[in-house]
Amino acid sequence: MRIAIASDHAAIELKAALIDYLRELGHDVDDLGPETAESVDYPDFGYRLGQAIARGDAERGVALCGSGIGISMAVNRNPKSRAALVSEPLSAALSREHNNANVIAMGARLIGIEMAKACLDAFLGTEFGGDRHAPRVDKLSNPDI
Amino acid sequence: MRIAIASDHAAIELKAALIDYLRELGHDVDDLGPETAESVDYPDFGYRLGQAIARGDAERGVALCGSGIGISMAVNRNPKSRAALVSEPLSAALSREHNNANVIAMGARLIGIEMAKACLDAFLGTEFGGDRHAPRVDKLSNPDI
Repeated sequence: MRIAIASDHAAIELKAALIDYLRELGHDVDDLGPETAESVDYPDFGYRLGQAIARGDAERGVALCGSGIGISMAVNRNPKSRAALVSEPLSAALSREHNNANVIAMGARLIGIEMAKACLDAFLGTEFGGDRHAPRVDKLSNPDI
Repeated sequence: MRIAIASDHAAIELKAALIDYLRELGHDVDDLGPETAESVDYPDFGYRLGQAIARGDAERGVALCGSGIGISMAVNRNPKSRAALVSEPLSAALSREHNNANVIAMGARLIGIEMAKACLDAFLGTEFGGDRHAPRVDKLSNPDI
């Protein structure tokens, strides 16, 4: 799968570890930055990831910041992105099954690397359930704001 | 504080319990629906809440669905809404301190009533930290999508 990943400075170590993990699993990974630990603004990287998903450059995205909260807000500004902020695998699986989430968001200061990998496994390994969930997901692409 | 609350059918019992709790605390609560357990689409109620926040009808919002994921995506489509999906109080507090979150999202099928109340207490009781966080939050209101 082609997967884009973006973070802020608080999550660059987790980003590096998850890039290695995803590549070991055989995925194509686009690292959208940042490249160093210098302080950056999470919305810049969240928007970059949302655009990559909306353009179809990547099938799935991974969004990381200290808590995962700020970058998940930014990614969800894009009507074509559906980012689920999770801290355990059940939510990660439900986000795929019910919401057809195409981005998983996690907090580098709140969960550890093994929990992050377990969430990623559930996110990548669960199919969208369709059916009654489909019209709801369609509405997310056409926001009434 | 004036607080608007919205959910889907999966969370109407939690919504009712949190409305009681917020009123006991002395808050003004606007129930944006739904009123019955009949199946509805969470984006409709998420958009309604995002609009109430954007118009200034309420200072804060509470968004509930089965997992909290779908409705948090919908609320975050509105550039004036900043919804944090949380399952424990630390994230709820961080969402205020770092992201100036104006909406808290929770999953009725994932956390219990006492945890939801503890999250709400942290969300309502924590001030925005401003400072370096302010320009980042400003960027969330002017999305580059």
